[in-house]
Amino acid sequence: MSLEIRIVLVEPMYQGNVGSVARAMKNFGYTDLVLVNPCKLEGQARAMSSHARDVLEGATVTSTLDEAVKGANLLIGTTGVASQKGGEHIRLPLYTVREVKEKLKDYNGKVAILYGREDSGFRNEELKSFDMLITVPTSEIYPIMNLSHAVAVVLYELSELEGGNSPLADGFDLQLLYGHLEELLEEIDYPPHKKDKTFLMLRRILGRAGLTPREVQTLRGIIRKTERKIGYALKDSEGPEIEDSESMEKFI
Amino acid sequence: MSLEIRIVLVEPMYQGNVGSVARAMKNFGYTDLVLVNPCKLEGQARAMSSHARDVLEGATVTSTLDEAVKGANLLIGTTGVASQKGGEHIRLPLYTVREVKEKLKDYNGKVAILYGREDSGFRNEELKSFDMLITVPTSEIYPIMNLSHAVAVVLYELSELEGGNSPLADGFDLQLLYGHLEELLEEIDYPPHKKDKTFLMLRRILGRAGLTPREVQTLRGIIRKTERKIGYALKDSEGPEIEDSESMEKFI
Repeated sequence: MSLEIRIVLVEPMYQGNVGSVARAMKNFGYTDLVLVNPCKLEGQARAMSSHARDVLEGATVTSTLDEAVKGANLLIGTTGVASQKGGEHIRLPLYTVREVKEKLKDYNGKVAILYGREDSGFRNEELKSFDMLITVPTSEIYPIMNLSHAVAVVLYELSELEGGNSPLADGFDLQLLYGHLEELLEEIDYPPHKKDKTFLMLRRILGRAGLTPREVQTLRGIIRKTERKIGYALKDSEGPEIEDSESMEKFI
Repeated sequence: MSLEIRIVLVEPMYQGNVGSVARAMKNFGYTDLVLVNPCKLEGQARAMSSHARDVLEGATVTSTLDEAVKGANLLIGTTGVASQKGGEHIRLPLYTVREVKEKLKDYNGKVAILYGREDSGFRNEELKSFDMLITVPTSEIYPIMNLSHAVAVVLYELSELEGGNSPLADGFDLQLLYGHLEELLEEIDYPPHKKDKTFLMLRRILGRAGLTPREVQTLRGIIRKTERKIGYALKDSEGPEIEDSESMEKFI
């Protein structure tokens, strides 16, 4: 039972940074690096990776963020303090690295830590798919850290996590739960102009709660029962209702 | 009453690293950077310093380590775990960053954090002048961090220190105390082949104890009385013996 960490760099612009990130990862014992549409990686990236060339060359390159986080149970975006307002707008809770360490200490599973572009960070669509935002407490005068420094500090702090006994729910199961919640809001005629914000809020609450697979199944059971009571059926047919959430897992 | 931190880079070899160090310092609110015989600092250093060009350009350049640590109360060298044995050899205690944070939390004064050459670290003569060694816990497979990453992680951890009520003794006073201790070892006919190691051990004990000015004066008083009792006088005449260590401080 361990807590695995994947580092995802979204459209990194400077190859030296990518190499430095690989080195910082290996310094703290991590190797799972995914690059979404990275810049060219040539000599400077290799030079900066130093003895972590294996991590750099073993990195997975994807063209979309969705592919990059496949298999991850929890998506944590990183941000400088300056982006805090952007985060508020899309209702992402902003935690310090140490707070996240505290939250994760009883869990096992795969956590993706995401870093945005060096100049412009994340786009709003990207932020919407994250479960929480993490920041390194810095000086207000100059809060924007170098990309690889931010990776080094986050991994320094999180490398103390050894993995606990609670499994994190599967990312795919969570997406199904979110989909059912969104349907429920429609079915109860939630005011359309409030619906998106409220849905995002529900998502955030559940995302940062660190749900276990059993909890996800139970929540989905509640939503199903509610929908039946009000006369709607779920669009996807899941067969007979099963109370035992553990046997449910086989169906997903 | 604050705890000030000075970053000292001893003969840094790559200008990009120096620039990155300046940036990491400003990210955590520090500006006191001293460079001992640095490499040439040109465009790449400025580029990597980003918005911390003021820290880079405000750095003090010295030709000796002694000048670089002038005015500092405590000298803390940083090392990768690989150098641990070198540290043992010269009897330096090796602490993690977090342990040092814990030790320093009640103090105020100026602490110099020293970083050695990117390829070869510190020389033994340099290590002998330090009060303690600090390390960032890393993977055994690849413990050697990039210079600026090591600065970022150490400052991330120590930036939580706000300064306590106990002043750290003046570095110059400490040197006088150490000198008197060394004399005492001679005066009591300490076995010459053990003398150096024992002196270094005493120095380490006092160095990591974080002595206050008052404690230093009291210890010097004890040594003086001891020397008088055994019939020796100190080489430097300090005038009449004064019991009150606080009024003593004026003479130093």
